[in-house]
Order: sequence, then C-alpha cells, then structure tokens
Amino acid sequence: MAEIHAQLTADCHYLGRFPLCHLLLMNDRNYPWLILVPDRADVREIYQLDADDREQLLQESCLLSEFLDSVFKADKLNIAALGNQVPQLHLHHVARYRSDAAWPWPIWGKVPAIAYNEQELADFRVLFEQANLPEFKISAG
Amino acid sequence: MAEIHAQLTADCHYLGRFPLCHLLLMNDRNYPWLILVPDRADVREIYQLDADDREQLLQESCLLSEFLDSVFKADKLNIAALGNQVPQLHLHHVARYRSDAAWPWPIWGKVPAIAYNEQELADFRVLFEQANLPEFKISAG
Repeated sequence: MAEIHAQLTADCHYLGRFPLCHLLLMNDRNYPWLILVPDRADVREIYQLDADDREQLLQESCLLSEFLDSVFKADKLNIAALGNQVPQLHLHHVARYRSDAAWPWPIWGKVPAIAYNEQELADFRVLFEQANLPEFKISAG
Repeated sequence: MAEIHAQLTADCHYLGRFPLCHLLLMNDRNYPWLILVPDRADVREIYQLDADDREQLLQESCLLSEFLDSVFKADKLNIAALGNQVPQLHLHHVARYRSDAAWPWPIWGKVPAIAYNEQELADFRVLFEQANLPEFKISAG
C-alpha cells in the first residue's frame, strides 16, 4: 500500500477506500471537499497510471461526484488534480455554492480552513455509511 | 455540434479537435494552458457524460497531458474541471513551473493574462501539427 503524503494526512480525515483510491475529507467546513488518492506509489500525473487504473480512477471519481452533487445539492462541482504543493497524485472533489466563501474563484488559498467538530465529522461518516457507494469501504484509516 | 461558450471563445484561440473535444489555447502566455471542451450540449459535469464519452474524454486528456508534459518539460501539470464562471463542461490542462507567475497557487485569477503575439500563436499551431497526436485534427475553428 502506498503511503499517503504527510501533508494530506495532516489536513484531512480518512473516510475509507474504493478499490483504487483512498477517500479523504479535507478538514475544512467551508466546503464539502473530498479527495481521492490512488493507492499507487510514485505517480504524480493521471496519464502515468496504466489503462486499468485510469479507468478505475474515472469510475471512482464519477461515483463520488454524483454522490456529492446529489447529497449536497451543489451549484457546481470542482474537480482538480493540481499537486503543486503535494506531488503525490490526488484528485480534489469540491461541492461549490454561489454563496460559499470563495465563489466564483477556486478554493485553494482563498480563505482559512475551519475545522469540523467531532459531531460534524461523525455525521459525515454516517452519510457515507448510508450512501452505500459501490465497492466503497468505510474505515477510520 | 454544441456551441462553444462565448467566454471561452473570447479568451482562447481555437486549435482543432479530437473525436470528442475541441482543443482551445488560452490566450495567456504566462503558462502553456490548453482546454478540452467536449462537443456535447448541456453537460456541466464529467459524471453526466455517458460511459463512452467519459472514456474518450479521459483518453484525450491523457494524450494532451503527456504531450504537454514532454514538450514543455513542466514541473507539474494542473488538470481541472471547475466551471464556476463558464458552466459548459471544459477541462483545463496547464503546464506549471516553479518559476511561473502563480506558483505554487492555482493560476485562476492570480495574474493578468498576457496575450500571445501572431508569431507565438503560429508557433503553437506548428507544434501541434508536428506532434501528430492520434485522431487530433488541427483547424482554425
């Protein structure tokens, strides 16, 4: 199993995993913000994944996107593989609202993060338990 | 053929198309910045594409990413579907450098665009002609 970059571990809560990717929740209640981290060492770019992994990443990303969009009633999703600060391949999925703190700009570096409290975090885990996303296994990491 | 959003047309040069996507060059010489626009009307999110289109988008995105990375010797690629300002689905592909104007932040809204001159734009078209990317057809739009 590829190790998750220390910066991601520090900034996020671990929610569980799909067949290819770990699922992290960014500890920032400004936005519903989830991150897929493919369990592959030393991969920085999507095109560097082999054909099967590329397809699996797309499938997991679309599952997560549809879930986010339907549960959080987003005005728009933002999906991005940036990695300027954390080179390990990871794919942001953010539910955006016209009323959110950074709209219409991208969220990165816009406003300080606001951490979830214990109850909110527990609620998030329940949400994923109930969603029953195909092949997703919830775990505390 | 789905119409390309007026804001994209205003901000970009048309380079050509893959089987699914139009390829645009953002008119900003701060970064090599290319945009794929799937030729599908009324689609805002990647997950809303059907299975064949999703796979084709991934393939075109990976072709373009590998090309960008190898030709421009990027320190990192930034791939993103945001669409907060232009809701039509479009996928940014940006070659990033530790020395660029916005590093390490995302590029959107960071520094004013610097337009390409005619010669630079012609050079870009030659680059794509010579790259001979599979199934890519160069055209002036």
